[in-house]
Amino acid sequence: MDNLGLTGIVSIITAGLTIAIGSVAPAIGEGLALANALRALAQQPDKANTITRTLFVGLALVESTAIYCFVVSMILIFANPFWNYFVQNAGG
Amino acid sequence: MDNLGLTGIVSIITAGLTIAIGSVAPAIGEGLALANALRALAQQPDKANTITRTLFVGLALVESTAIYCFVVSMILIFANPFWNYFVQNAGG
Amino acid sequence: MDNLGLTGIVSIITAGLTIAIGSVAPAIGEGLALANALRALAQQPDKANTITRTLFVGLALVESTAIYCFVVSMILIFANPFWNYFVQNAGG
Amino acid sequence: MDNLGLTGIVSIITAGLTIAIGSVAPAIGEGLALANALRALAQQPDKANTITRTLFVGLALVESTAIYCFVVSMILIFANPFWNYFVQNAGG
Amino acid sequence: MDNLGLTGIVSIITAGLTIAIGSVAPAIGEGLALANALRALAQQPDKANTITRTLFVGLALVESTAIYCFVVSMILIFANPFWNYFVQNAGG
Amino acid sequence: MDNLGLTGIVSIITAGLTIAIGSVAPAIGEGLALANALRALAQQPDKANTITRTLFVGLALVESTAIYCFVVSMILIFANPFWNYFVQNAGG
Amino acid sequence: MDNLGLTGIVSIITAGLTIAIGSVAPAIGEGLALANALRALAQQPDKANTITRTLFVGLALVESTAIYCFVVSMILIFANPFWNYFVQNAGG
Amino acid sequence: MDNLGLTGIVSIITAGLTIAIGSVAPAIGEGLALANALRALAQQPDKANTITRTLFVGLALVESTAIYCFVVSMILIFANPFWNYFVQNAGG
Amino acid sequence: MDNLGLTGIVSIITAGLTIAIGSVAPAIGEGLALANALRALAQQPDKANTITRTLFVGLALVESTAIYCFVVSMILIFANPFWNYFVQNAGG
Amino acid sequence: MDNLGLTGIVSIITAGLTIAIGSVAPAIGEGLALANALRALAQQPDKANTITRTLFVGLALVESTAIYCFVVSMILIFANPFWNYFVQNAGG
Amino acid sequence: MDNLGLTGIVSIITAGLTIAIGSVAPAIGEGLALANALRALAQQPDKANTITRTLFVGLALVESTAIYCFVVSMILIFANPFWNYFVQNAGG
Amino acid sequence: MDNLGLTGIVSIITAGLTIAIGSVAPAIGEGLALANALRALAQQPDKANTITRTLFVGLALVESTAIYCFVVSMILIFANPFWNYFVQNAGG
Amino acid sequence: MDNLGLTGIVSIITAGLTIAIGSVAPAIGEGLALANALRALAQQPDKANTITRTLFVGLALVESTAIYCFVVSMILIFANPFWNYFVQNAGG
Amino acid sequence: MDNLGLTGIVSIITAGLTIAIGSVAPAIGEGLALANALRALAQQPDKANTITRTLFVGLALVESTAIYCFVVSMILIFANPFWNYFVQNAGG
Repeated sequence: MDNLGLTGIVSIITAGLTIAIGSVAPAIGEGLALANALRALAQQPDKANTITRTLFVGLALVESTAIYCFVVSMILIFANPFWNYFVQNAGG
Repeated sequence: MDNLGLTGIVSIITAGLTIAIGSVAPAIGEGLALANALRALAQQPDKANTITRTLFVGLALVESTAIYCFVVSMILIFANPFWNYFVQNAGG
Repeated sequence: MDNLGLTGIVSIITAGLTIAIGSVAPAIGEGLALANALRALAQQPDKANTITRTLFVGLALVESTAIYCFVVSMILIFANPFWNYFVQNAGG
Repeated sequence: MDNLGLTGIVSIITAGLTIAIGSVAPAIGEGLALANALRALAQQPDKANTITRTLFVGLALVESTAIYCFVVSMILIFANPFWNYFVQNAGG
Repeated sequence: MDNLGLTGIVSIITAGLTIAIGSVAPAIGEGLALANALRALAQQPDKANTITRTLFVGLALVESTAIYCFVVSMILIFANPFWNYFVQNAGG
Repeated sequence: MDNLGLTGIVSIITAGLTIAIGSVAPAIGEGLALANALRALAQQPDKANTITRTLFVGLALVESTAIYCFVVSMILIFANPFWNYFVQNAGG
Repeated sequence: MDNLGLTGIVSIITAGLTIAIGSVAPAIGEGLALANALRALAQQPDKANTITRTLFVGLALVESTAIYCFVVSMILIFANPFWNYFVQNAGG
Repeated sequence: MDNLGLTGIVSIITAGLTIAIGSVAPAIGEGLALANALRALAQQPDKANTITRTLFVGLALVESTAIYCFVVSMILIFANPFWNYFVQNAGG
Repeated sequence: MDNLGLTGIVSIITAGLTIAIGSVAPAIGEGLALANALRALAQQPDKANTITRTLFVGLALVESTAIYCFVVSMILIFANPFWNYFVQNAGG
Repeated sequence: MDNLGLTGIVSIITAGLTIAIGSVAPAIGEGLALANALRALAQQPDKANTITRTLFVGLALVESTAIYCFVVSMILIFANPFWNYFVQNAGG
Repeated sequence: MDNLGLTGIVSIITAGLTIAIGSVAPAIGEGLALANALRALAQQPDKANTITRTLFVGLALVESTAIYCFVVSMILIFANPFWNYFVQNAGG
Repeated sequence: MDNLGLTGIVSIITAGLTIAIGSVAPAIGEGLALANALRALAQQPDKANTITRTLFVGLALVESTAIYCFVVSMILIFANPFWNYFVQNAGG
Repeated sequence: MDNLGLTGIVSIITAGLTIAIGSVAPAIGEGLALANALRALAQQPDKANTITRTLFVGLALVESTAIYCFVVSMILIFANPFWNYFVQNAGG
Repeated sequence: MDNLGLTGIVSIITAGLTIAIGSVAPAIGEGLALANALRALAQQPDKANTITRTLFVGLALVESTAIYCFVVSMILIFANPFWNYFVQNAGG
């Protein structure tokens, strides 16, 4: 098995695992925050604006860690420098 | 075993594991948020509109992490650049 | 062992594990949401309609992650592009 | 060891593990929901009808994830397309 | 080691593990439900009939997941199609 | 190492692990139920009969999962169809 | 290494692990039940008889799962049918 | 490496692990029961006799699971039937 | 397989795992902090400014640990000194 | 590597692990009991005698499981029957 | 594979894992502290200065453990004495 | 690799792991007990003498399990009978 | 692969893991202590001096365990006696 | 690979892991005790002297288990009797 094949295989596995593992914590963190936002809404319905605004700004920050993983996963599939190097050499 | 076979096998495993692992956290996070929404509804039935609206917007955000995984899983099965490369070379 | 055999074996394992792992979290999340719905019903029996409606919409969303896994599992058993490719080549 | 043998062995293992792992979460989720239904009954005995109706509809949804696993397990034992393919070829 | 031997060994292991793992969650889920039924009984002794009826219907549903595993385990020991196939071929 | 030896060894391991793993959950579930029964007794001493009757019926159901495992374990040691097949062939 | 040696070694390991793993849950379950019995005694000292009677009957049931494991462990050391078969053949 | 050596090595490992794993749960279970006994004593100092009597009878039952493991461990070191068989044959 | 290939493969795996593992804790920590901020807002709506300011400064600090991981991950993909060294030597 | 060497090595590892694993649970159990004794003392300072007496009797019982492990560990280092057998044969 | 290649590979893996594992605990610890700071602010809004000052000094201390890991990770990538030694020898 | 080398290596690993694993539980148990002693002091400052005396006697008992591990660890490094035997034979 | 290479590789791995694992617990412990200090400040703002003084002395003690790990990690990278010995011999 | 090299490598790994694992529990235990001391201070500010004195004596005891690990770690790096033996023989 040559470098080209192994690099491809490893990229597939890593891309999949990165987004799979990387989506665990944001989903739980967002669920937790959302759950408390709903409790806060039930406690202070008059402040719904402030609460939902803070909630969505915070959720965006949490979502950002999932997006880091998605970015790395997409780079590994479609813009992988190691793969490109080996394809270029194999074709040379 | 050649590159083509290994790439196919690895794609199958990774596609399955990515969606399997990636659906764990969203399901739990959504269940958590839903559970608190129902408690909030029981506490403030008059604000049912605000609560369910915030709930569904939040759930969509949580669901998005599961969809990232589903997208990667589908890419690996039906639009896998590594597989296409090797098929193209094997057939060349 | 040739590519055909390995692809078949790996598809079996992955199909089984995908639905097995993928059904863990939805079942727990739904149980959690259901448990809280029942508590909410006991607290606000007059709002049974709103509570059960929100519950079933939410459960459908949670169930969707289990269905993603079931879809991938069925694709791997009955519409597996890698398996089809190798069968076609073996028969060619 | 040929493809036929390996496919059979892998089907046995996967069928067993799929139903074994897949029955863990529904059983716990149902136990959880049932436990809260009983608490709700103790709190609001007058609403026994609404509570038990919601309970059984919800339990059916949770049970469905166990049934997905059971279906995949039975397919792997009695209607396995990979096994059929190899048996057909071996007998050809 | 031939296919016959391996199939037998794998069937033994899988049959044992399936029932062993598959009995974990039902036992815990039933213990949980039973525990809450007893608490509910202590809280509302007058509704003992409704509570125990709901309890036993629910327990039956939970027990069903253990029975799925027991069925698969028995099929693997006494009605294993893969084993039968290989025994028939070995004796042919 | 021949099929006879391996089948024997695997039967021993599986028989032991099946009952060992399979006794974990029932013991914990029964302890949990028993603990709550005692709390219920302390809360409603007048209903001792109803409580202990429900307790023992429920415990029997929980115990049944341990007995499934014990049955499989005994079958594997004393009525193992795979072992019998190989002994019969070895002695033939 | 022949069948006789391997069977002996595997019997030793399995016998030890069976009782070791199998004693974990009963000890914890009994400790849990005992702890609640003492709390119940402190709450309802007048019902000491009923409480301790229920406690000891329940503990016996929990202990039974440990005894299943102990029985299997003793069978594997002193009445192992696989070992007896190989010893008889080796001495024949 | 012959059967004699392997049997000795395996007996050492199993004897150690059996008592090591087997002492985990009793120690925790006894600590739990003891902790609740002390709380019960603080709550009902007048019933010290009943409480301590129930405590020590229960602790003896919990301790019994540790003693099962100790017995198996001692049997494996000083009265191991497999070791005796191989020593007798080696010396014959 | 030469140094160049192995270095590439290892860089891919490490880059993916670093951001995947490294995003778990920040997402959970931020979710936790956000959840408490929402509760604090519900309790002291008049101090919304102080609370959200402290929240965002703190979240930035937590996010910094995710960014350390993202930096290391990007260095390993696009500015890897070990890869550069081997490429330079392979091309020399 | 001969039996003598392997027996020595295995004895070292097992002796260390036995006491290491075996001291985990007693230390936690004793810490738990001690913690509750101190709480009980703070609640009922007049019963300090009864509480500390029950505490130390109970702690001795918990400590006994650590001592079982220490005894096995010492036997394996200084009075190991398997080691003695092999040393005697090696020197004969 | 020579020393140079292995040292490079191992440095990549270790650098990634060090910062990945090392960022888990600080992020959780900081989230925990931040969460409590927000609760404290809600309880004592008048002492916002003292609370935020103590918070940021403490967070700096917690962050320091993440920085230790980042320092070791950077040393392993850019100032690795083992790598330098082997490069120097390979080029000599 | 001869017996002498392996015995030395195994002694190093076991000595380190024994004290490392063996110090986990005592440290946590002591921290737990200490934490409760401080709470008890805050509740009953007049009984500081009784509380601290019971605390230190109890801590000594918990510490004893750490000391068992330290003793075994020191024996394995400085008074290892297996090492002495092999050194004596190697030098003979 | 010679001693020099292996010693270097092992030093890199161990140095990284030591500080990575060793920074987990201090960060959590410090976060826990800091969280409680902030709660204490909110409860007793007048005693801010005593509380922060005790906090920082305690945090220093906790930080010391992280520093032990950092010291060992630095010794392994920059003052490793085993590496020095082998370099000296390789250059001799 | 000779005894000298292996002994060195194993000493490095064990020294690092011993202090890494051994610092986990003391840091958590001390954080727990410190957290409770701060709560106790907030509850009984007048007894600050008794509380901090008991705290620091207790912390010293907990710290001692970390120091045992540090001592073993330093012995393995700088005063390792096994390493000294092999160096002495290699140089003889």
